[in-house]
Amino acid sequence: MNRLNKRKHAPDQVSELTTNRLSVYLRCLNELDAAGAQTISSQALAEKFRLNAAQIRKDLAYFGEFGVRGVGYYVRELRRQLRKILGLDRHLRVVIMGAGNLGLALADYPGFRQEGFEIAALFDAANEKIGHESRGGVPIHDIKDLKRLARKERLDIAVIAVPAPHAQPVVDLAVAAGIKAILNFSPGALKVPGEVKLKSVDLTVSLESLSFYLAQGETGE
Amino acid sequence: MNRLNKRKHAPDQVSELTTNRLSVYLRCLNELDAAGAQTISSQALAEKFRLNAAQIRKDLAYFGEFGVRGVGYYVRELRRQLRKILGLDRHLRVVIMGAGNLGLALADYPGFRQEGFEIAALFDAANEKIGHESRGGVPIHDIKDLKRLARKERLDIAVIAVPAPHAQPVVDLAVAAGIKAILNFSPGALKVPGEVKLKSVDLTVSLESLSFYLAQGETGE
Repeated sequence: MNRLNKRKHAPDQVSELTTNRLSVYLRCLNELDAAGAQTISSQALAEKFRLNAAQIRKDLAYFGEFGVRGVGYYVRELRRQLRKILGLDRHLRVVIMGAGNLGLALADYPGFRQEGFEIAALFDAANEKIGHESRGGVPIHDIKDLKRLARKERLDIAVIAVPAPHAQPVVDLAVAAGIKAILNFSPGALKVPGEVKLKSVDLTVSLESLSFYLAQGETGE
Repeated sequence: MNRLNKRKHAPDQVSELTTNRLSVYLRCLNELDAAGAQTISSQALAEKFRLNAAQIRKDLAYFGEFGVRGVGYYVRELRRQLRKILGLDRHLRVVIMGAGNLGLALADYPGFRQEGFEIAALFDAANEKIGHESRGGVPIHDIKDLKRLARKERLDIAVIAVPAPHAQPVVDLAVAAGIKAILNFSPGALKVPGEVKLKSVDLTVSLESLSFYLAQGETGE
């Protein structure tokens, strides 16, 4: 059953664009599964969600042989495999650095829990926030206590939601606390040691895809 | 100079994954330009930002011939062209529906202004929010006034940052106000007429890419 062993490429060679597409496929499969679909071809998957069928086949081929000739993919089984590839079959503990608007919004974002991420805590330096919690009940701790909490409990991912000037010192604290994966929402470049994975999210990308659409519309093409 | 005319594919065939990659390339070129780089090859661009060189060449080839043999790309010129392709050479007016944590965070997100988006207003239904403004000074209007404001000023994009149960009625209001592009941060499927472009953002995708990294690390591969 462990099809992961069949993959042809080392994980290092799998680009983030590929794993991002796997996430998109997983979201599609969740929807199909919820709608009761049993099987789907790469072609039908592509048409339904406006994806590229050849790209789907290529992306999945990195990790094994999931398609069945004449059937396509078994929705639930492929979903299970994608969750495993993405490491979502484990329980991942996330902390959010910064209890401002973005941090509080992320702490209560419904999608995170849905896919098995646990938002363990928010951290902030402002006395008036410490000891309170987000609307959804995530506690706000003193940022000075990060290391202590990390020693007590396994913390997998730190989300950086502080203003840009504070981002690097806060990342350094997360790294010093032994956190190996960082998701950065703050603009600007950040440095981490080689063994720590840093991913920066630029929310502008989504607006730009709409801008592209509007620009095409205006030229009347 | 209008290389857009040379493109081989109609914009309809350009997938969102492609335009998302164009946004990523633009961000890389911004960085290179700020660092004073004049030219860069697709290979060097790929290596520096951990992208795929063949994919870069393929994506750009949709829109024209930007590379110069023996030189690569002229950083500033390619940046200008990408901004044009993405419609960022115009001034786009964005409204944010929902002045909760996420809406307020998005209203003041520094990256939006940087790329030429203007956050014109926030809209909410809560009396205690209406008349106030975000920390960055974006005014919060009564959602009932959306149509009136849209008639007075051109509004290009509506960002949906309301809780899931309110999302569809709020989208309907934006569509009725004549807005043609919608960026949805609320989980769940939404319906829009065919002439309106809807893009839904799942913030979970980024966490999943880190989850993938952590999962690979744990299997020791």
